Amino acid sequence: MRLRRKPGADQKLVTEYAGLVASEPLALRGRWKEALGGQRLEVEIGAGKGQFIIEKARLFPEVAFLAVEREPDVLLKAARKTGSGLPPNLRLLLFDAAAIDEVFDPGEVGRIYLNFPDPWPKNRHAKRRLTARSFLEKYQRILEPGARIHLKTDNGPLFAFSIEEFSRMKWTLHGVRLDYGLREAEGDVPTEYEERFRAAGQRIFRLEAETP
Amino acid sequence: MRLRRKPGADQKLVTEYAGLVASEPLALRGRWKEALGGQRLEVEIGAGKGQFIIEKARLFPEVAFLAVEREPDVLLKAARKTGSGLPPNLRLLLFDAAAIDEVFDPGEVGRIYLNFPDPWPKNRHAKRRLTARSFLEKYQRILEPGARIHLKTDNGPLFAFSIEEFSRMKWTLHGVRLDYGLREAEGDVPTEYEERFRAAGQRIFRLEAETP
Repeated sequence: MRLRRKPGADQKLVTEYAGLVASEPLALRGRWKEALGGQRLEVEIGAGKGQFIIEKARLFPEVAFLAVEREPDVLLKAARKTGSGLPPNLRLLLFDAAAIDEVFDPGEVGRIYLNFPDPWPKNRHAKRRLTARSFLEKYQRILEPGARIHLKTDNGPLFAFSIEEFSRMKWTLHGVRLDYGLREAEGDVPTEYEERFRAAGQRIFRLEAETP
Repeated sequence: MRLRRKPGADQKLVTEYAGLVASEPLALRGRWKEALGGQRLEVEIGAGKGQFIIEKARLFPEVAFLAVEREPDVLLKAARKTGSGLPPNLRLLLFDAAAIDEVFDPGEVGRIYLNFPDPWPKNRHAKRRLTARSFLEKYQRILEPGARIHLKTDNGPLFAFSIEEFSRMKWTLHGVRLDYGLREAEGDVPTEYEERFRAAGQRIFRLEAETP
């Protein structure tokens, strides 16, 4: 268990946004779709301030969405952003991706989103990148067979690293884009970072990786 | 057999550069290393004017190099470029890549270079791209198990397409670079195109793909 128990932001999350935040995530393991009323479950890891997943939840009311973020301050901003219009098919989860496979039964997740994950540019920090092979093993366990990870980043070295890690772990790559257009993939929505980077003229990379 | 038999340039190739051009390629199938005096055999497909492979042959005298090019006029330029200093471990071969697996025994080739292949940008021409799956199947047959293709291109969509094709055919990707530096990979040399594109400030993509 890597739930953060700092008193400030995460206390607020639980008290002010009780309906929105999944405060006992392990209790729902194996029952997420049922609890959120979705035909399938899609999980964003490193959800940040939540713009992406909140819009997704509104666009796809038949899908259950779970926003995983380990920083309470950041997740609190996401909670505030939903305001009064809380999508019933969305929950926020204060959790560390390194233990993500504790949260779900094998095959419970239909899709994972990794949007602009921290590139951890130093080689000695490569294992912390959310597409490092130890993470891919965890994702593989919780994803349905044939399900996909959708990755977007503005960071070329992280994108190249991710391609190599997926390849080494025998995932199959689809929809590789080295200059991804806004909302180019069906059903995709931009994140906060993406909008900022696009406004600065920076190119966005994207791919989908299918489980081995 | 797809040897071109136009009278002009290829006639000149055979008469003026008899020692350099492999005029009966199928006769040497299975014996290339022996014939060229190399411990291993490396093949460039689409060798163009030959700057890359000629420098490689001079840098690595212990390796046998074969430059495959289907355009006689282009290959003639490569032949002229070697001038009097003909590297004994290099041969030029006028041949179409679509039949490349007729030229070698299974596992005879230690490495394949694809440098700035024609991107064939239209979707209906995707099968003509040198990294289309039908080509990958042929390369896999002639490469030693665990051997690699080294791909360089300035074309983003072709690079993305190649990543997907390699992935689908279960090749493993290494050394993926989205902004490849001059001679960054050990033993690599620039091609004519590469020098021109670099001078124009264009980024170069590179990867190595290992057989399934």
